[in-house]
Amino acid sequence: MPVVLPNLDAIEDDVRAALREEDHDRLGRLVLRVHPADVAEIIDRLDPKDRVAVFRVLSRDAKSEVLDEVSPEATRQLLTSLPADQVGPLLNRLPMDDAAEILSEDVPERRDELLSVMAPPDADDVRVLLAYPPNSAGRMMTEKFARVRPDMTAAETISALRGIGPEVDTITYLYAVDDDGRLQGVCSLREVVTGGPHRPLANLLRTEVVAVRPETDQEEMARTMSRYDFSALPVVRDDGVMLGVVTIDDVFDVLVRESGEDLLRMGGMDAEGLNQPYFSIPILRVVRKRVGWLLLLFVAGTLTGTVLRTFEDQLVEVVALSFFIPLLIGTGGNTGAQTVSTLIRGLALGEIRFKDTGRVLGRELLSGLILGLLLGTVAFGRALLWHSSARLSLVVGLAIVCIVTWANTVGALIPLVAHRLRIDPAMISAPLITTVVDATGLAIYLLIAIPVLGL
Amino acid sequence: MPVVLPNLDAIEDDVRAALREEDHDRLGRLVLRVHPADVAEIIDRLDPKDRVAVFRVLSRDAKSEVLDEVSPEATRQLLTSLPADQVGPLLNRLPMDDAAEILSEDVPERRDELLSVMAPPDADDVRVLLAYPPNSAGRMMTEKFARVRPDMTAAETISALRGIGPEVDTITYLYAVDDDGRLQGVCSLREVVTGGPHRPLANLLRTEVVAVRPETDQEEMARTMSRYDFSALPVVRDDGVMLGVVTIDDVFDVLVRESGEDLLRMGGMDAEGLNQPYFSIPILRVVRKRVGWLLLLFVAGTLTGTVLRTFEDQLVEVVALSFFIPLLIGTGGNTGAQTVSTLIRGLALGEIRFKDTGRVLGRELLSGLILGLLLGTVAFGRALLWHSSARLSLVVGLAIVCIVTWANTVGALIPLVAHRLRIDPAMISAPLITTVVDATGLAIYLLIAIPVLGL
Repeated sequence: MPVVLPNLDAIEDDVRAALREEDHDRLGRLVLRVHPADVAEIIDRLDPKDRVAVFRVLSRDAKSEVLDEVSPEATRQLLTSLPADQVGPLLNRLPMDDAAEILSEDVPERRDELLSVMAPPDADDVRVLLAYPPNSAGRMMTEKFARVRPDMTAAETISALRGIGPEVDTITYLYAVDDDGRLQGVCSLREVVTGGPHRPLANLLRTEVVAVRPETDQEEMARTMSRYDFSALPVVRDDGVMLGVVTIDDVFDVLVRESGEDLLRMGGMDAEGLNQPYFSIPILRVVRKRVGWLLLLFVAGTLTGTVLRTFEDQLVEVVALSFFIPLLIGTGGNTGAQTVSTLIRGLALGEIRFKDTGRVLGRELLSGLILGLLLGTVAFGRALLWHSSARLSLVVGLAIVCIVTWANTVGALIPLVAHRLRIDPAMISAPLITTVVDATGLAIYLLIAIPVLGL
Repeated sequence: MPVVLPNLDAIEDDVRAALREEDHDRLGRLVLRVHPADVAEIIDRLDPKDRVAVFRVLSRDAKSEVLDEVSPEATRQLLTSLPADQVGPLLNRLPMDDAAEILSEDVPERRDELLSVMAPPDADDVRVLLAYPPNSAGRMMTEKFARVRPDMTAAETISALRGIGPEVDTITYLYAVDDDGRLQGVCSLREVVTGGPHRPLANLLRTEVVAVRPETDQEEMARTMSRYDFSALPVVRDDGVMLGVVTIDDVFDVLVRESGEDLLRMGGMDAEGLNQPYFSIPILRVVRKRVGWLLLLFVAGTLTGTVLRTFEDQLVEVVALSFFIPLLIGTGGNTGAQTVSTLIRGLALGEIRFKDTGRVLGRELLSGLILGLLLGTVAFGRALLWHSSARLSLVVGLAIVCIVTWANTVGALIPLVAHRLRIDPAMISAPLITTVVDATGLAIYLLIAIPVLGL
């Protein structure tokens, strides 16, 4: 049976054995049989020294493809192991958007050096892409797309496509542009093939084209591709000139990668440098990337201590007040975290805009109040069951109502403000909400306690 | 300039105006000019009654496309507004994987009723897909793919493709299967077009095909497509028989949708019924979906009260102990959340498997200890600055070392165990880690306090 689902674990074992025996011929034969994407996966699993050894035995084409697929960390190591004049030809063979990504994100400090050893036309193409922000359409597009003329027939178009080179990333869609480079229409290769050989292309072209601007970011491109089921989008300037094409696989890769980064950020970590295979990250780098957030939150958290010291007299008088502290701030934090997730999702999908702030706060205030009343009633009952006095139980119940309503509203406000300030809401919201709600929640609790308990 | 980037806000305003004036002719003309995917987006923004009014004026083809693109909530409402015999023809026009999704997820209670009004062959196709689990290759595949014979030339293949119907979702890849339906090889339409008209297809076919099994889940398909840059994957049974094709746009849609669901789950919410436009969800449903988790966490959180009551005597004696409670459990929770995110990401990307449990725990124990020592030193200094006694400061510092190490280890263990038990780690890990670390962290703190403070 010819179908192959590669067993990477087995190949990895073979590669490691060949490396141990320093049998470079065997290594070369091994990787020849494996798809470059799988070689990349295996290289990611190896130590730096072994990575270079495997890379060395690859053909030049495979080297380019592997560079394109390995983790940023490995790309960096592999490029560093080569003199600049050997890197140039490898970068020339890559799609220019991928070369731009490597130069700007993996080895930014060698960017100019490596541009100078690339073929001048390719280097110029890369410079154009690098002028756009990361993850924008301008950065992710390829400038080489399939151009067609409306006066051709379907059969003539197919003949013309025979001459198209490998540097054109996709011929799924064919684009008609006028002499000034302005996009006039689009049709799919499928329509050309199935439409009958003598059909003029002008008949097949759709002139209402969904396009993106070079500054459109990848999230909006993902939404657009998903909504219309397009596998590529033309990138068009304000004056209608078509600059290039972004293909779904580039957006897809970013999406797969970003979903991991979002997870790390939600957990309160700087994703950069951590978004690579788990076991390949040195422990000390993990610690360095994590300790900053933890320290910041720690310092912010000392605020809760300050709040509690302010109420020292009350706590000495009714020590039972302290039994409920973790429960109250925990419930506030959980409520806030729920709202934050809802808002981050709504903002990311474009369902919520800053101008909706009033409506959002109204909704979250109301749902917070309902949640607070439900949980407050339960808390009151639970405190009574613990043989707390009726008054203390009342304090706990009332505090829950206020804290939940408050946490729900702040949990909506923080992502909205972050989004407005162009800070990734996933990055700061979760830690910030905990800190804000912890300290203010304690103050609410103890301020309710003073009059009700007559402290 | 023919390029159109639709301004949905403006169209929405026009649609709302036509609805207010009950001008159905104008409504019909309006939606005729708009891509069905955009009509779907606007329908999602409307109230239920208006949704049905807009849907009614659409052509039958547009109705099918809109059904395919609107939120599950809206799909349900629109289908409910129609008698079963009108729904059948709409479902027949959909790709069968999309029809299967609607029947199983949007209107599961009408599944058999609606299958009975579909065209029998289509209904049979849908039944086959429904036998596979949601988000698996078997569920998301289309059984109609482009079959070719190796003995054809490129030109003959292109001629043969002219007869291919719209029910074949993609002709980007062409598949050669033998008489028993076993997959023999694959080539791309691009290779056929650019390869020269007289080239025999057998020359172009690659026989080492990356395929997936019908039970492969969408995350693994996403990784495979991303790794190899394929826009479609053949679905193959164990005996080599090709069942269908999964296209990148279906996986892409799931990925875009799931990234929102993961966010909701990380925030501790049941994503089902909430994963739709923010403003379209009734507040009472939001409350219902959120209160369950909050109550569960609340009840779990009362454990912290029990721990504190156990140490009532010590807290009465040294009330300053309580000042540090929120800080200590907060730091434990933050540390645990970081580890949980790292592990969820590693498990989702397949970098970590259950057999790695020992290695993972070793790594996280070590990094937890380093983080704990760093933060513990800071905590010790901070406590001294607050004019705490040297002994109390020592208790706080030591507690941080132990709590951080412990939280880091438990934060690794919970996602691993959840993954092993086939529970989505994103669903349970974040809330569980807080609860576990809060209660145990308090116990660690007070157990250290007793000997050091001589309580």
